[in-house]
Amino acid sequence: MILPKSNRLTAEQLAQVTGIVEEFGCRIQPIVGAVRTIYAIVGDERDELMINRLEGLDYVERIDRIQSPFKLMDKRSDLASHRIKLGGVTLGEELLVIAGACTIDPKNPSYFYETAVAVKEAGANALRGGVWKPRTNPYTFQGDVKSLDILMEASRRTGLPVDTEVMEESQIKLALDAGVATLQVGARNALNYSLLRQIGRAIAGRPTAVLLKRSIHMGPLSEFISAAEYIVAFGNPNVILCPRGTSPALDGYRNQPDESITPLLKEKTWAPVVVDPSHSVGKAAYVPAAALAAIAYGADGLCIEAHVEPAKGIGDDPKQALTPDALKKTITDAKALWALRHPEPAVAR
Amino acid sequence: MILPKSNRLTAEQLAQVTGIVEEFGCRIQPIVGAVRTIYAIVGDERDELMINRLEGLDYVERIDRIQSPFKLMDKRSDLASHRIKLGGVTLGEELLVIAGACTIDPKNPSYFYETAVAVKEAGANALRGGVWKPRTNPYTFQGDVKSLDILMEASRRTGLPVDTEVMEESQIKLALDAGVATLQVGARNALNYSLLRQIGRAIAGRPTAVLLKRSIHMGPLSEFISAAEYIVAFGNPNVILCPRGTSPALDGYRNQPDESITPLLKEKTWAPVVVDPSHSVGKAAYVPAAALAAIAYGADGLCIEAHVEPAKGIGDDPKQALTPDALKKTITDAKALWALRHPEPAVAR
Amino acid sequence: MILPKSNRLTAEQLAQVTGIVEEFGCRIQPIVGAVRTIYAIVGDERDELMINRLEGLDYVERIDRIQSPFKLMDKRSDLASHRIKLGGVTLGEELLVIAGACTIDPKNPSYFYETAVAVKEAGANALRGGVWKPRTNPYTFQGDVKSLDILMEASRRTGLPVDTEVMEESQIKLALDAGVATLQVGARNALNYSLLRQIGRAIAGRPTAVLLKRSIHMGPLSEFISAAEYIVAFGNPNVILCPRGTSPALDGYRNQPDESITPLLKEKTWAPVVVDPSHSVGKAAYVPAAALAAIAYGADGLCIEAHVEPAKGIGDDPKQALTPDALKKTITDAKALWALRHPEPAVAR
Amino acid sequence: MILPKSNRLTAEQLAQVTGIVEEFGCRIQPIVGAVRTIYAIVGDERDELMINRLEGLDYVERIDRIQSPFKLMDKRSDLASHRIKLGGVTLGEELLVIAGACTIDPKNPSYFYETAVAVKEAGANALRGGVWKPRTNPYTFQGDVKSLDILMEASRRTGLPVDTEVMEESQIKLALDAGVATLQVGARNALNYSLLRQIGRAIAGRPTAVLLKRSIHMGPLSEFISAAEYIVAFGNPNVILCPRGTSPALDGYRNQPDESITPLLKEKTWAPVVVDPSHSVGKAAYVPAAALAAIAYGADGLCIEAHVEPAKGIGDDPKQALTPDALKKTITDAKALWALRHPEPAVAR
Repeated sequence: MILPKSNRLTAEQLAQVTGIVEEFGCRIQPIVGAVRTIYAIVGDERDELMINRLEGLDYVERIDRIQSPFKLMDKRSDLASHRIKLGGVTLGEELLVIAGACTIDPKNPSYFYETAVAVKEAGANALRGGVWKPRTNPYTFQGDVKSLDILMEASRRTGLPVDTEVMEESQIKLALDAGVATLQVGARNALNYSLLRQIGRAIAGRPTAVLLKRSIHMGPLSEFISAAEYIVAFGNPNVILCPRGTSPALDGYRNQPDESITPLLKEKTWAPVVVDPSHSVGKAAYVPAAALAAIAYGADGLCIEAHVEPAKGIGDDPKQALTPDALKKTITDAKALWALRHPEPAVAR
Repeated sequence: MILPKSNRLTAEQLAQVTGIVEEFGCRIQPIVGAVRTIYAIVGDERDELMINRLEGLDYVERIDRIQSPFKLMDKRSDLASHRIKLGGVTLGEELLVIAGACTIDPKNPSYFYETAVAVKEAGANALRGGVWKPRTNPYTFQGDVKSLDILMEASRRTGLPVDTEVMEESQIKLALDAGVATLQVGARNALNYSLLRQIGRAIAGRPTAVLLKRSIHMGPLSEFISAAEYIVAFGNPNVILCPRGTSPALDGYRNQPDESITPLLKEKTWAPVVVDPSHSVGKAAYVPAAALAAIAYGADGLCIEAHVEPAKGIGDDPKQALTPDALKKTITDAKALWALRHPEPAVAR
Repeated sequence: MILPKSNRLTAEQLAQVTGIVEEFGCRIQPIVGAVRTIYAIVGDERDELMINRLEGLDYVERIDRIQSPFKLMDKRSDLASHRIKLGGVTLGEELLVIAGACTIDPKNPSYFYETAVAVKEAGANALRGGVWKPRTNPYTFQGDVKSLDILMEASRRTGLPVDTEVMEESQIKLALDAGVATLQVGARNALNYSLLRQIGRAIAGRPTAVLLKRSIHMGPLSEFISAAEYIVAFGNPNVILCPRGTSPALDGYRNQPDESITPLLKEKTWAPVVVDPSHSVGKAAYVPAAALAAIAYGADGLCIEAHVEPAKGIGDDPKQALTPDALKKTITDAKALWALRHPEPAVAR
Repeated sequence: MILPKSNRLTAEQLAQVTGIVEEFGCRIQPIVGAVRTIYAIVGDERDELMINRLEGLDYVERIDRIQSPFKLMDKRSDLASHRIKLGGVTLGEELLVIAGACTIDPKNPSYFYETAVAVKEAGANALRGGVWKPRTNPYTFQGDVKSLDILMEASRRTGLPVDTEVMEESQIKLALDAGVATLQVGARNALNYSLLRQIGRAIAGRPTAVLLKRSIHMGPLSEFISAAEYIVAFGNPNVILCPRGTSPALDGYRNQPDESITPLLKEKTWAPVVVDPSHSVGKAAYVPAAALAAIAYGADGLCIEAHVEPAKGIGDDPKQALTPDALKKTITDAKALWALRHPEPAVAR
């Protein structure tokens, strides 16, 4: 929809606009209003180059986009009936909980092994553990590949599928070869399209899922969904959207909680939403409330940091990991709220 | 500086806090106020793990950081006297202008050759041209390696050093081997620490510079400077900071202009600042004003998109590229304003 | 806490700083760190003029404030044990629900009378109804004093105490004379200190409460609490804090939901928090989820728009008012979640 | 323009939508696209109630507004040729500079008298001085009506017209009776529609102007322009728009500079734009750069805080007031840049 700066286009301007859209297989239909005439673009308006050319015209005030920019992630696409399964849970039918340490300590693997057992007992369906870590400060510990062995050993001991963040092509390969079930894209890489493409290519034809964190800064939802589209475009639609708080932080939290976008994501796309309350609020004391708020807003699952002894953890764990007891209570409450919001038995739907 | 929730720590709490900071080679000095006592951390407070442990304590309200997190980018570091030269210009002594097309069209190389000649005539000191492009929409043209040859041929024809964006390790190598003078890190990759490290390693020992765009979303300045620290940590300090507008956009612009951070960056770091007004406002008609505003705020240079025939360009050029005439006028005005702000002859300083 | 730009102040600078703080009855205590010395202000640091003078010094990088700026709203003040009662509910002990129409239609009073009865039956404890309305568009209906009679008649019919927004001194008087129990300060007036003072003066010595909406735009929490301090400073501490979403909006909502600030407000102040999910999301379909999220974050109550026949309402009601059935279900679910979060009987606390 | 959630409305939905818009004198025109049909509202779409009803429909995704919401402030209105004169300057033809103290100190009037003379000598065309002050902290000095006499005496001594902020109806009357030329609406009251209406009524039929500061928090431009529409609706069109920085602050500044909105305001409305760099950056050292940036973006004038001896000032002056020398240099540079941007003699335009 083209809105001119004046009340209507001159004949010459209309001819120029028509010429541009016809190059891209579209046509113009004027909508004559009482005062102002606007001009609909009939056809596939999604070509960025066409939009850029139109926006480059001096007499155009703005272009309102009508079509969804997503071919595959759109709720009206053929993928809408796709269901993702993880740790025995079909997302959307039952609450999924992914829990575990922010960062695996390669020098003290027993903490992670004990944490893995504890989160399973607390009711988690999948295990998270950080092997490689992106850090704002370049002089901070950035992770260690040895931790991958620890992660997989914990998976074997508990039977839980595992999730870990990857940041480079070499890490993708290592993680997949080791048997990681869910690759995590961190918030700082949510707009790293090279990485998204590498992951899309690497998981095509595999059962692997991707937990796509939302960018660390507040952007439009279309930006978040487009990042998912990058991955799904290669053929594997197992992408889970993960809001995790955005910048700038509320004073007192690590970030600004954003679980409230869940209903909006669910209106635009078919993808399941698993919220990470731990990074959102960034302090263990606030995590249980944020976890419940995510369920209140309709999230399909939670991704929570936990540690058998948070003060002994590395990375963010001393600050934001729940103890096993706190995790267990949070999962119990979350399930009670889930039941309140899903009164009908899932099989009946 | 530790601020407890209560007016002072109990003896037990103080012992716990002291125990933590001593593990990291620091000590606690209480500051007894009229009502409230606070607790200074004496020593190197920059270890994130120490901070995380302290923030994990229930009785701590917040930690105020006192030290600069930057070892090398800090204005008080040994690098403060380092000067970067590009295209015959020593940054800080004379206005630097980088100009050229957003995206090189590999099917129509003559547009880029003509643009290169035109930007040189307009007064630019370096040539920019996009070979590989990050795009929000996965189905949009993403660049073509053939354009690298076109870029280098334009460099040879004009004698201008060239700048291009790289997004993957393989592209870094190709660009350096071809002779690209300035690697550009795009706004979407400003927090991609893997890429920053790869670039830092690749340019160590070379004269290559990096034009580091600010993240597409508004984050604290420390985040931007930390990204530069990642690169410089490998030994080559030729990093130029490039504000280019942030999200969310002002209604009518592509982004929210952020040239006003220039004086703040210059207070914290020694690095030169080159502003990109083209991406900031996103429409050619607004670019000259934004370019002048950057100079008003003390920028050392400008990075501007230009094209001999914008409507024939690809990528963002139809929308935001200046014509050679508009570029020439913008450079002339910018130089006049630069002279107004730098009244003494540069040699005398 | 004064942080100089250099690693320490010169003797002359220290003398100047000391001179300034001594004028305000404070003294300076240097904190000598390994590299950098900082300077604590010992005494009452809350005088803005002292801070402004210090910030005006060229060699000062920044001032970190240590003391709470709130004398009365601070959680550590004598008012901390104050409890507010409304509609038979003691806030903090039982869930409070205020419900009713955005705008009373003076031409069709029966809608409001029916709505009043319906919200009482649905379980609400107090009745809201807009008499005067602030509107972004000056040509929109701005309210009618006749609606005040309708509001009070509805109160008599149902026995519910009533809440209405006031925007001018004359309206305060009219509302109090009529017997309005709770004056509402709208989001656009949250920083209108003249109005806050007029309200504070007018309610001193009365049992009247104030429902203070958070400003429509995202500001620091201290700004919100300071607005409450303005009212309480005149002697009546019945101020209820009401987050209602902030700008810029999430795409798809009316605002950006901010119920997540509830735990942060409760850390800083003793005041009860009643969240308004209706203005936060701005569409009836999203209100129930937002209401639950508020309870998840620990809100003491909810303020919800409802109408017997939303499409016949005026103001925002056609868009965001719940039907009586939807309101009843929302209150029932909110009470169930409240019970989950407050497992102990309230009497036992 | 109505965008349904599905690809087109059902017959029943279309009938309902048509029924609603016909109540408001509009009609629906469907625009049939290749995949999706959208529905234009033909007629005056500006009635908020109509929009609210449409947005309340479950099957409507969103409404794109086509018409400008401003009747009088719109650049296409009959007022577009109106010119405002102040202090001998016709806005738009010559640079206007308003300068003076943030807050008049009623105990030390000589500072203000000296400041008034100094700003006139520095080249200012009008004098600002704060009589009443809105303060975040309720315990800070809030102004004194005695300062109004000092302000007017300074006006008589210098011949400069004066500007002062008003916050209540009683202050409006006092200021107008005293002969204040320009009433200032402060940033915290930019959405206080009662005050805007009171001012509009009070200045109708007078030559008085209003300097309307932008809200302290970042809102859409339409919100700012609507505030002006409130005043102009009463008949006096002498409204000047004043960007002054918005929240959240950039770290190091008082606010986030927003002079860059100037070209956008000038596209939407005919009103002159006078930027306040003092509140934008909040520190004297940064003000000259911010003032130049405002001129770079096309501002018609500047509103700058100045004081003969800033450290002796009250209010914000110790932090942000320029000395007379710094003011003089800033005005000189601003005029030089103005000349650069307005190369043709003003009379010739």
